[in-house]
Amino acid sequence: MKTAKDEISGNTRGRRQRVQAVTTGAAVLKGLASLGGRASLTALAKQISENPAKVHRYLISMMEEGLVAQDPISLQYYLGAGAIQIGLAAMRLAEPLRVAEPALVRLRESLEMTCFIAVMANKGPTIVRFEEPSLPVTLNVRVGSVLPLLRSATGRVFLGFSDDTLVEKLAGQELAEMAGSHARLSRAADPIAAIKKEVRVAGMSIVRGTNLQGISAISVPIHDFSGRVVAALTVLGSTGSFDVSAKGRVALTLKHEGLEISTALGYTGQA
Amino acid sequence: MKTAKDEISGNTRGRRQRVQAVTTGAAVLKGLASLGGRASLTALAKQISENPAKVHRYLISMMEEGLVAQDPISLQYYLGAGAIQIGLAAMRLAEPLRVAEPALVRLRESLEMTCFIAVMANKGPTIVRFEEPSLPVTLNVRVGSVLPLLRSATGRVFLGFSDDTLVEKLAGQELAEMAGSHARLSRAADPIAAIKKEVRVAGMSIVRGTNLQGISAISVPIHDFSGRVVAALTVLGSTGSFDVSAKGRVALTLKHEGLEISTALGYTGQA
Repeated sequence: MKTAKDEISGNTRGRRQRVQAVTTGAAVLKGLASLGGRASLTALAKQISENPAKVHRYLISMMEEGLVAQDPISLQYYLGAGAIQIGLAAMRLAEPLRVAEPALVRLRESLEMTCFIAVMANKGPTIVRFEEPSLPVTLNVRVGSVLPLLRSATGRVFLGFSDDTLVEKLAGQELAEMAGSHARLSRAADPIAAIKKEVRVAGMSIVRGTNLQGISAISVPIHDFSGRVVAALTVLGSTGSFDVSAKGRVALTLKHEGLEISTALGYTGQA
Repeated sequence: MKTAKDEISGNTRGRRQRVQAVTTGAAVLKGLASLGGRASLTALAKQISENPAKVHRYLISMMEEGLVAQDPISLQYYLGAGAIQIGLAAMRLAEPLRVAEPALVRLRESLEMTCFIAVMANKGPTIVRFEEPSLPVTLNVRVGSVLPLLRSATGRVFLGFSDDTLVEKLAGQELAEMAGSHARLSRAADPIAAIKKEVRVAGMSIVRGTNLQGISAISVPIHDFSGRVVAALTVLGSTGSFDVSAKGRVALTLKHEGLEISTALGYTGQA
């Protein structure tokens, strides 16, 4: 006869099994994805260190749901149309602004600096969201401000990581307009190529008063699932008021938050 | 004390629970996808007709696996980076040739006609795989053959459903080359636009001896998850040897198989 104690432990076990089943199910799907989307039962079970009989039961259930299909000739299992639909819905949501918002708040709180997100719009890199620290005197930025590609840290991130023809075109126009006013920049044989290389090597851009006198800024790229740069995450402050080295606390914190956002957008560092 | 019978029924129940958990898990993911990828617990539970407490336990487990994430402000659940990775792996596999192979075999068996798959290559629609019935006399096609865009059923499917500039360019060249030889075609004010409209309205292309004298063919488009036409599925036979009407058995069987392939590639009829 069942006792109250049995009842409870039964429920607990039931609950654990449920959670366990989701864990195993996710392992099966991720295991298939990591094997290029298709694998034999043996290879898949080995990949996720599970009993083949157990993996087989999961695969059968997933085939019923359209998440997985089986090739009639090779008998390999592969991720099916249901997995595509779920992935497409996830990708449509992978919106940098929405994902970056909590990171902006965290950055403001930990660094007590003005920070913002910019996206590439038709006039150039454009500030779309910012956070300011609650200090007596702060640097103010404006939503909608367009930043230069060659002189701002934000612009250089787009220049360095984008192959967009619009970016190339705008950068060329800027270079022509600058003429003699920024001698140091235009003295390089190919200043655009030089900036691109520097940003790519560092994985970020740091400028000290290049765009606005007395203002330094650090910017990192936000990548989406395809590897494309979809936004830049930037902090800025008075030159001398913060550590602008690539190994400093500000740069490392920014880099970490940038990678968190990119990862949430499906970026894996490949592609 | 446990008896042998208890043991068996326990095992059976355990197996059923496992299957049930995958079914519920898949319902949660698909439910989120159908709600645009994000939803409140209440809306999601309602969408999939499940108990909110049960859905919540699944969501918690899926969050641990990175399949789902929760917006810290709205508290809505949304499909996460893990779902993107699984979807991307599935999309990379969504290869029309592989998926279409079993359909080609089924078509040959049910219709006893020559059938093939063509893709758009740089010279035009190109046959990449075919099946022939085992009859004494059959129509033979060759892998690698390039078909005309304006005169073949296969070509017209690509013309009708594609916005590719290469298709447009090749069609223009073909029209110029045809000159007076196909008077009926070139008599229309804009023959290319006329063909496009006809194919789009019918959802298929039927030609009776337009490309090769005495040969009729029916062709349907294969769409992928993005809605793009990635291949054409075609049957052909001697004119008079089969029903070439759009409502005939051959056309309906072909349309059905084409849709099966497209669905397996993630096509939903939208996009």
